[in-house]
Amino acid sequence: MSNTIALYPLSNFTFSTKEAQPEEDPSVSARLQRLQNNYEDFGMRRTVEGILVVHDHGHPHILMLQIANAFFKLPGDYLKPGEDEIDGLKRRLDERLAPPADSRQFDQATHGVDNEWEIGDCLAQWWRPNFETFMYPFIPAHITKPKECKKLFLVQMPERKVLAVPKNMKLLAIPLFELYDNAARYGPQLSAIPHLLSRYNFIYQ
Amino acid sequence: MSNTIALYPLSNFTFSTKEAQPEEDPSVSARLQRLQNNYEDFGMRRTVEGILVVHDHGHPHILMLQIANAFFKLPGDYLKPGEDEIDGLKRRLDERLAPPADSRQFDQATHGVDNEWEIGDCLAQWWRPNFETFMYPFIPAHITKPKECKKLFLVQMPERKVLAVPKNMKLLAIPLFELYDNAARYGPQLSAIPHLLSRYNFIYQ
Repeated sequence: MSNTIALYPLSNFTFSTKEAQPEEDPSVSARLQRLQNNYEDFGMRRTVEGILVVHDHGHPHILMLQIANAFFKLPGDYLKPGEDEIDGLKRRLDERLAPPADSRQFDQATHGVDNEWEIGDCLAQWWRPNFETFMYPFIPAHITKPKECKKLFLVQMPERKVLAVPKNMKLLAIPLFELYDNAARYGPQLSAIPHLLSRYNFIYQ
Repeated sequence: MSNTIALYPLSNFTFSTKEAQPEEDPSVSARLQRLQNNYEDFGMRRTVEGILVVHDHGHPHILMLQIANAFFKLPGDYLKPGEDEIDGLKRRLDERLAPPADSRQFDQATHGVDNEWEIGDCLAQWWRPNFETFMYPFIPAHITKPKECKKLFLVQMPERKVLAVPKNMKLLAIPLFELYDNAARYGPQLSAIPHLLSRYNFIYQ
């Protein structure tokens, strides 16, 4: 395992927009109900999300989606039953952030932009013990059948990349010091990202 | 990098005591003053600590030292100038937790106990920007000369081991759920350990 990661400047990345991607569920309770229905059909939900790191003037920033000027989330989502987690994360990152297929071919032809995602280490696993909102970075005692496991992967951003953001979302670059010790604003999962990245030595290109 | 780690039960480990090891500094201000004096002579302090993981009934526990029935810390300490960090961590773990040399030879001869430490991945780095108590899991902005870098390493505990604890300390096995979200009691570094370990899949032997 290499602990050294090259980071490229935020200004190397091109951001465009694409069609809105509404939430699949209209409310938290509807989301938990669908989780329960899917659990009965397919077993534990497997979710994968990407931690996309760039730098701005030598400080690491995480690319995060903001929805409706309110909550933040990482790109990624749940997998299909049986789907490989790395393939599934690439599919989910493409769905969320890749330019539409026609413009993608254009980019590759004209700029030589590589749209393949490079998935790095698994950085964290979060477990949902019940059909409730709480998740933990371990399987709590007496829980033999967790309802969801979410894995966060480091995504190594290439030197340049074109990203297309759904119109109902914003893609923001959040510095580590803003996330650190800030569960009040970002929640327990996102505010722990500085801890997960601290073992890496970043090279600022 | 393997994400799978074998954990052995707490009951496999034998705990004895040895002579007290008083703190090197009589107060926090004396400690920070010595840090500053050493910085002027040798540059940034490099500290290494071990995260020793065992299990109790299938739940991971971290071995931590408690001093004077009050604060908790991981075994480990600062390195000598120029000392290799892995060698130095082994030396510090021996100082703190190995039985005195005469009984160690006895253990090896009679029980075949291997007293070599197996150091795993670096799990976190904490930086001290100033001669003050605060540390961060990243180098804060505008800090070009951090005063201390502390690295936390996973220490893979063997199937059995004899540990000797200085008389002025206790060695406690703290479960992850006790540390999690509990910076009030354990401070920011120890309460983050569940995050750092969450990417591993533990096999409970």
